[in-house]
Amino acid sequence: MRIPVDIAATGERAAAMLEALGAISQSSDNLTRFFLTPEHRRAADLVGDFMRAAGLDVSEDALGTVRGHWQPAGPDAPRLLIGSHIDTVANAGKYDGTMGVVVALLALEAVVKAGLKRPYGIDVLAFGDEEGTRFPTTLSTSAAAAGHFLPSWLGARDADGLSLDEAIRAYGKDPAAIPAAAYDPDKVIAYVEAHIEQGPVLEAEGEPLGIVSAIAGASRLSITVTGEAGHAGTVPMRMRRDAFAGAAEMALVAEKIARADRHGMVATVGRLHVEPGSVNVIPSRVVFTLDLRSGSDISRREALTEFEREAHRIADARGLGVVISAFHEVGTVPCYRDLQLRLRNAVADLGHRAPTLPSGAGHDGQAMSRLCPIGMLFVRCRGGISHNPAEYAAREDIGLAVAALVRFIERFELPQLTGSVQGAEQ
Amino acid sequence: MRIPVDIAATGERAAAMLEALGAISQSSDNLTRFFLTPEHRRAADLVGDFMRAAGLDVSEDALGTVRGHWQPAGPDAPRLLIGSHIDTVANAGKYDGTMGVVVALLALEAVVKAGLKRPYGIDVLAFGDEEGTRFPTTLSTSAAAAGHFLPSWLGARDADGLSLDEAIRAYGKDPAAIPAAAYDPDKVIAYVEAHIEQGPVLEAEGEPLGIVSAIAGASRLSITVTGEAGHAGTVPMRMRRDAFAGAAEMALVAEKIARADRHGMVATVGRLHVEPGSVNVIPSRVVFTLDLRSGSDISRREALTEFEREAHRIADARGLGVVISAFHEVGTVPCYRDLQLRLRNAVADLGHRAPTLPSGAGHDGQAMSRLCPIGMLFVRCRGGISHNPAEYAAREDIGLAVAALVRFIERFELPQLTGSVQGAEQ
Repeated sequence: MRIPVDIAATGERAAAMLEALGAISQSSDNLTRFFLTPEHRRAADLVGDFMRAAGLDVSEDALGTVRGHWQPAGPDAPRLLIGSHIDTVANAGKYDGTMGVVVALLALEAVVKAGLKRPYGIDVLAFGDEEGTRFPTTLSTSAAAAGHFLPSWLGARDADGLSLDEAIRAYGKDPAAIPAAAYDPDKVIAYVEAHIEQGPVLEAEGEPLGIVSAIAGASRLSITVTGEAGHAGTVPMRMRRDAFAGAAEMALVAEKIARADRHGMVATVGRLHVEPGSVNVIPSRVVFTLDLRSGSDISRREALTEFEREAHRIADARGLGVVISAFHEVGTVPCYRDLQLRLRNAVADLGHRAPTLPSGAGHDGQAMSRLCPIGMLFVRCRGGISHNPAEYAAREDIGLAVAALVRFIERFELPQLTGSVQGAEQ
Repeated sequence: MRIPVDIAATGERAAAMLEALGAISQSSDNLTRFFLTPEHRRAADLVGDFMRAAGLDVSEDALGTVRGHWQPAGPDAPRLLIGSHIDTVANAGKYDGTMGVVVALLALEAVVKAGLKRPYGIDVLAFGDEEGTRFPTTLSTSAAAAGHFLPSWLGARDADGLSLDEAIRAYGKDPAAIPAAAYDPDKVIAYVEAHIEQGPVLEAEGEPLGIVSAIAGASRLSITVTGEAGHAGTVPMRMRRDAFAGAAEMALVAEKIARADRHGMVATVGRLHVEPGSVNVIPSRVVFTLDLRSGSDISRREALTEFEREAHRIADARGLGVVISAFHEVGTVPCYRDLQLRLRNAVADLGHRAPTLPSGAGHDGQAMSRLCPIGMLFVRCRGGISHNPAEYAAREDIGLAVAALVRFIERFELPQLTGSVQGAEQ
């Protein structure tokens, strides 16, 4: 059967729902909605209302994740999970996360309305801790659903000194019930998420939707280069040990390595501090960060090795010291090939090409990948802008994403998924 | 005649005098002696005492410059000027400036003691505003001696809001008498100064003394590079407009230009600010300074042109904006060739090589060059360090500088100086 979707009308409805959710903020100036705040509560309630209106049964787990259940084969049947998150960064846009929840429940509404029968169910999930803006516990809500919540996280504290344990209780939930939030891996088929791209690729390609190949692994390094201060006028070039000149050369090497990579590697020197920082003094010390991401862990690790080797070569040639430390390291999570193909076929059915691209940003799928295969659908966003009030996705594109999920669901038969989830490099 | 100089004993005496002068400070923690302060007054008095002890007549001009006169041919005879400054930066060393005054008066003491007869006289000068640390009027005291003091400078104010005019009066001098401080250009033969190198060249060459070819001209640029901020994970390398990557490339181009130069050019990026400065955001704006100096104005101007062209080429290739502004510009002051040769011969007579090198730092000679030919003798300093309590010149080297000045004076006959002062490029 082919379930009817009015893309334009659905896009309008999605926009209205995003508007309503976007109005729920801790700040009157902008959209800021952190994990387990009263605004999270209000947004979760509204999402619950939307789910019920879509014909889903609603529950919440011990971390406040809202779950809308479609259970045509009863509560014990295996299930597909489709979701995203409803927490935001400070001064956020209305689309990051929330759009994926709205797209999922509108797709389910169409499925419910069509009276589709399947031997499995679908849960729509609205996670609450994807941005990691309140506690240092990013992805705790999806980790709980995946059965990998670490009890030690309960001791993490927010800026006011409140622990996660206390915040959960203040939210009206019981930390002791967190283990029960975990899905049974044997009963979960896959996790699928729609999300704005947060980058400029789809816009540049003129395509509304894209298929994520992998959530890129990331390494963050802190590099300290030490040289020798000196009078800018009196120390000849050949006698200098200029820490900044060395750092500049290292930054360009990192750029060159990323450009040469074939797995969408990106390298960013985002922060750099020069000491002593006087116009007429040769820099004695520079500290900078390097953020390196790739859809391939092998290429990222090779790049790190190459960068390290080059940084030491540059330092040696210039008589500088260099100390490199890694302060963040996350492996690549490949999207399951079969889910990629199914999502692409669904988009192709709507007359679009759906380019494949890695996700440079992190997502709940990283936590969910420990539970089941994951797939992601990207929606074009204007100018590649996110984490910013200027974040925007066109209604038509959001309507198309709903339609693509409906096409994906209506063709989804069991058992289709076999093979390793966290298999070889994509 | 060959005037006897006991180099070791003279060095010891110089060190003792520098110790005594170095103890006169506005701060109990370190040496800080600004223009027209009570400590300037005390240092000037002590210098006056030293001059009288050396057999010189002492006077002071309206800006407090102490003048020690040796006048074997009477007060109307032409004169050679030998001096330096007794003001310091904050948290200074004991040698910068003050050593040149001590060396000059010890040389004159030997000349006086030897009963040398000459058809000209010598003034030892102790200037008071070389560092420019109190008022924004660097070199005002030597400019007054050179007849180029600008009346508008009297309105300049120090950090407490006191004007230079007021400070001069508080020092017991009369601003109306400043024009009378100017030497008659027809009566001045040359200005010679001994100064610590403030750089590492002589130490590296194993030579105690060096001859300055020119006081290098300097340009200071502020360069603003604008690109586009973006998520460090989601914007592919080929779509980036990374302001820092562009700035790094520009900084390395400046270094390359300076290294290729044959006039001792130096280029320093001493200050650099990255916006927004987050580890996971592509830099949208970078502002950095470039300090460029050369013993040749032609090569400095060519380098500026080349840097500008390259900066625009880099910006164009990367889709960046670049705005370059110059906020400081001083031309090169060549040292007079005949004085360079005479100083080198004097040093050679002491058994040393006296390498030629440009001065990257500024000196009173820049102001004096508008009055007469100038020459400079550099004294090796440890580690090239200056403007720092660790500043140090060995007693033996200072004794050698005194001996070199004595040799220079005893061979100095009139009329020797002909030709243009500010002539062709060195």
